Amino acid sequence: MVMLKDPSKKYKRFPPLNLPDRQWPNKTIDKAPRWLSTDLRDGNQSLVDPMNGEQKWKYFRMLCELGYKEIEVSFPSSSQTDFDFTRRLIETEGAIPDDVWLQVLSPCREDLIRRTVESLKGSKKAIVHIYLATSECFRRVVFGFSEDQSVELASKCAALVRSLTKDDPSQSGTEWAFEFSPETFSDTSPEFVVRICEAVKKAWEPTVENPIIFNLPATVEVATPNVYADQIEFFCRNITEREKVCVSLHPHNDRGTASAAAELAQMAGADRVEGCLFGNGERTGNVDLVTLALNLYTQGVTPNVDFSDLGKVIRIVEECNKIEVHPRAPYGGSLVVCAFSGSHQDAIKKGFQVRENEGKGYDDYWQVPYLPLDPQDIGRDYQAVIRVNSQSGKGGAAWVIQQHLHLDLPRGLQVAFSQVVQNMAEKKGRELLPTEITDLFRQTYFLTQSPRFSIVDYTISPDRSASPAPPEPGKTQDTTSLRRLFEGVVSVDGLEYKLRGRGNGPISSLANALRTVGIDLDVQDYKEHAVGRGRDVKAATYIECTAAGTKKTVWGVGIDEDVVQSSLIALLSAASNFTPSRQGSPVLSKTTANGPQPPDFLSVLEAKAADV
Amino acid sequence: MVMLKDPSKKYKRFPPLNLPDRQWPNKTIDKAPRWLSTDLRDGNQSLVDPMNGEQKWKYFRMLCELGYKEIEVSFPSSSQTDFDFTRRLIETEGAIPDDVWLQVLSPCREDLIRRTVESLKGSKKAIVHIYLATSECFRRVVFGFSEDQSVELASKCAALVRSLTKDDPSQSGTEWAFEFSPETFSDTSPEFVVRICEAVKKAWEPTVENPIIFNLPATVEVATPNVYADQIEFFCRNITEREKVCVSLHPHNDRGTASAAAELAQMAGADRVEGCLFGNGERTGNVDLVTLALNLYTQGVTPNVDFSDLGKVIRIVEECNKIEVHPRAPYGGSLVVCAFSGSHQDAIKKGFQVRENEGKGYDDYWQVPYLPLDPQDIGRDYQAVIRVNSQSGKGGAAWVIQQHLHLDLPRGLQVAFSQVVQNMAEKKGRELLPTEITDLFRQTYFLTQSPRFSIVDYTISPDRSASPAPPEPGKTQDTTSLRRLFEGVVSVDGLEYKLRGRGNGPISSLANALRTVGIDLDVQDYKEHAVGRGRDVKAATYIECTAAGTKKTVWGVGIDEDVVQSSLIALLSAASNFTPSRQGSPVLSKTTANGPQPPDFLSVLEAKAADV
Repeated sequence: MVMLKDPSKKYKRFPPLNLPDRQWPNKTIDKAPRWLSTDLRDGNQSLVDPMNGEQKWKYFRMLCELGYKEIEVSFPSSSQTDFDFTRRLIETEGAIPDDVWLQVLSPCREDLIRRTVESLKGSKKAIVHIYLATSECFRRVVFGFSEDQSVELASKCAALVRSLTKDDPSQSGTEWAFEFSPETFSDTSPEFVVRICEAVKKAWEPTVENPIIFNLPATVEVATPNVYADQIEFFCRNITEREKVCVSLHPHNDRGTASAAAELAQMAGADRVEGCLFGNGERTGNVDLVTLALNLYTQGVTPNVDFSDLGKVIRIVEECNKIEVHPRAPYGGSLVVCAFSGSHQDAIKKGFQVRENEGKGYDDYWQVPYLPLDPQDIGRDYQAVIRVNSQSGKGGAAWVIQQHLHLDLPRGLQVAFSQVVQNMAEKKGRELLPTEITDLFRQTYFLTQSPRFSIVDYTISPDRSASPAPPEPGKTQDTTSLRRLFEGVVSVDGLEYKLRGRGNGPISSLANALRTVGIDLDVQDYKEHAVGRGRDVKAATYIECTAAGTKKTVWGVGIDEDVVQSSLIALLSAASNFTPSRQGSPVLSKTTANGPQPPDFLSVLEAKAADV
Repeated sequence: MVMLKDPSKKYKRFPPLNLPDRQWPNKTIDKAPRWLSTDLRDGNQSLVDPMNGEQKWKYFRMLCELGYKEIEVSFPSSSQTDFDFTRRLIETEGAIPDDVWLQVLSPCREDLIRRTVESLKGSKKAIVHIYLATSECFRRVVFGFSEDQSVELASKCAALVRSLTKDDPSQSGTEWAFEFSPETFSDTSPEFVVRICEAVKKAWEPTVENPIIFNLPATVEVATPNVYADQIEFFCRNITEREKVCVSLHPHNDRGTASAAAELAQMAGADRVEGCLFGNGERTGNVDLVTLALNLYTQGVTPNVDFSDLGKVIRIVEECNKIEVHPRAPYGGSLVVCAFSGSHQDAIKKGFQVRENEGKGYDDYWQVPYLPLDPQDIGRDYQAVIRVNSQSGKGGAAWVIQQHLHLDLPRGLQVAFSQVVQNMAEKKGRELLPTEITDLFRQTYFLTQSPRFSIVDYTISPDRSASPAPPEPGKTQDTTSLRRLFEGVVSVDGLEYKLRGRGNGPISSLANALRTVGIDLDVQDYKEHAVGRGRDVKAATYIECTAAGTKKTVWGVGIDEDVVQSSLIALLSAASNFTPSRQGSPVLSKTTANGPQPPDFLSVLEAKAADV
């Protein structure tokens, strides 16, 4: 079989409503709807392996903790398991919070309705939910019913529920509510839906205080979501006694637009939404209640349910449903608060920086590129925001270094280090872990292992041999003219050498000292900042150098409690980076093909060391 | 941290457009857009482990085979890998079909644009795609740009691309197209988007024949999808020279409504959609091209891409992306053309039955409850449509039996067998495989193993001892009065007994024969149909019996090439079902607590067998 070249005979375009004066496109959603979780309904929403009793129990507890107040717990007439689960909830002291409604489902059949109501005996708040498919297709193919027969059956069943519940004095201990679903609503003529609901409403006689719930399912998604919104708006405008009616949505996701349908239909007037966490359910599932709630939250609307520990919710749902939350599922997906691409990482990093610079706290206005939600709000980690693979740019690795080592690398060092990271990621052919990146950084800049060059001992003193120029009248002393003398011992490959050099400050005086032994480095860029606070504060120094007469630049990094020593370490780290290998000839002499050849500095060093 | 009780300070409601005269809600989608697959863009859309060259190559081939004509293959300036991949495509003879456009992406930076165009040298059809984020947030936080600076940069870069491509005579071997994305479009003032696009259009100077592509991304989904549609309609109405402009969409899925946004925005006037198969991409991903295409198809619109072997597409995508297609993903999910719930299974079964009864073929009008798409159209199996677990009703098991054994069980037998299935599913605590269900059926009704009772030999002859009543004048003979005589040998637990009985037909005569040995069964229901065709046709018979004086009913099933023997086997299958055990006392005598106690028929049988 192949897909038809012209599918128009096999599949008919869904005819949209003619509703040119629709109002919903001008609306926004300003408050949370009433939520109904239907995760626990019969069949546990079409799981390959349904939940057992313990899992159902655990799931119910979680729903209560999240703040759901209406929970469809079973289809009691369909199996003893579901009946028993309902009884267990009701009969276990304290299992159901006082403000939570139990909802149970039944088809429009007398024996099944009786059994259903029986399962609720003794409950505090109960919603009896009956359904009857109303579309032409279902009436013809499944039931063989006319419209009149459907209306009569629905009305009769509503009256039966009434007689068994709110009209039965022996049931007065329970607060009863009633829900009717014209199943396949989205594929039913809107006029007929209003007609059958009017009949059901008349049979039930709702009040303003206890409105009847008309739940209008997109049992199968048959059209674009605006059509569903039109259907809902039509219903809201045409049902009588609107104030005694709660209009409820139950969108399925066959066309991948259930969340949109739920949102547009709320704009169209609906009061309530039925769905499942992470969109579980028959076929493509019900609308995803997590997405809907957090969509409200990120628009500043209180959702009335709490997903601050989304990770815990995911663990329980995955355990009970045995279906993984997709890595790209909105909000919950493992990859959703991650960025791999260089430009994204860079922008996010800047966003956090601006936030920090502006002194913004947790609950201040959120505006970070590419992150519509503060990951902390759902218990996710900032450190997982940026992840690094071979396609990542400088920002990703820099972010990891900042988060884990608290080092704020200058841009040039970010670029240089990202190349090192990219090489490793390509070599490994996979994402790098943060620990791999920090290890790589420490190793590259000699923060943990002994570099080829290291400082053993030193003093920096005023250079008495040079007299500073006197300050001009009315100006402060020109500090650049306060020259310094470096005298110290530098270890090279484990051998110690005394060196001496003069400069404007410690770095240039050490650089000049090195020059006396033929190591001729020009400092190109320099940055320093504090790491940590209070007693444990350290200085981090970043130095970019070129070897004189070459274009090759390297970076060195120094960290020390002593800010001066931190600079010296950074310079020697850079020097080591020209000659990272302890074997073979020094790299310096290899990298200067375009410039004058410097001497083989190690031999020079050895020759001159005695002079110093 | 917890979710804020009032998130309105941290998150601002997205301000919708004021567009009361919007036209899109009155529209439907009547043709497929131009598609652009961006699956292979830089970073391979944010995979934890990006594709290697071979995987990218395989994916590209698949996209061409599916019918995609515009494919974004790389971000050549970002890595050597991407540059090389582009070159390999261009330099490999026959790798790119003649009607396929290669698209490559570059930021608005001169050096990167030069490198990008370089990667395309020698290609036949190429789209250079440059982007610049235009939202206030990005201009401020990421670039530090004013609106004017952004317009100037975009315009300058468009002119640069022009000079390097269509204005460069040495590049005339390539058919060049140009795309500009005001990144973060959905979060940018609509007026500014028009302004910057006008400037870019002026720099490029498109024609009606080769329109400029303005790609308007929801880089982050920031509002309900109707707002995106409003933004697109505003752009379409306000950009000048609309006929020289291709309006392209690039929706992301942060709020779970990317598919809806793409559809509503097409209604609002867009011509083209960029996305990925199964919605891969940064964070929550790009819009899902599979869903969009098949959404068109199920509305009778030719999508211009072919997903007739969706299973193969899934295999390649999963192999390359290393991300599983979710079990509930529209169309592609493994659970999407399955039904577990009893009422769904029942309705689907009826739908297929009606289809068969009406003689409908593969390409005839499709209307089956709960199945918006004929699974065959995407290469999926009818047999997988209905799956059976402990929550399934009679329809599911009956469907499996019908599909695998070609037996069309009567309703009563469906109910009886579903109980057997449910017991097994509950015992196993998991879904049952079709082979487990068919084995269970064969075993329950003795189709493979020797039942306790079986027929060894028999003749059915006219019962000469009874003379038929003569037919009334003008009427045909009353066949019910043609009585039959059963004479045969029945094996019971391996012992053979001769039996004789009279009745209206073979079944009743065998039933009466059994009665002579104390086995008193009343036939309650009976159904027979042919299985298979031509030479191999067999008869299947289903018989429901009660033991006289009891309410317990059992079913028997017989299958044989001989229609009469099939009935006899069915009756003995039912008899065996009263006494399935070869050990202990017969069940018959146990199940009649409410009625008169029949004799222990086995002893009677042995006593009377000699008489026959």
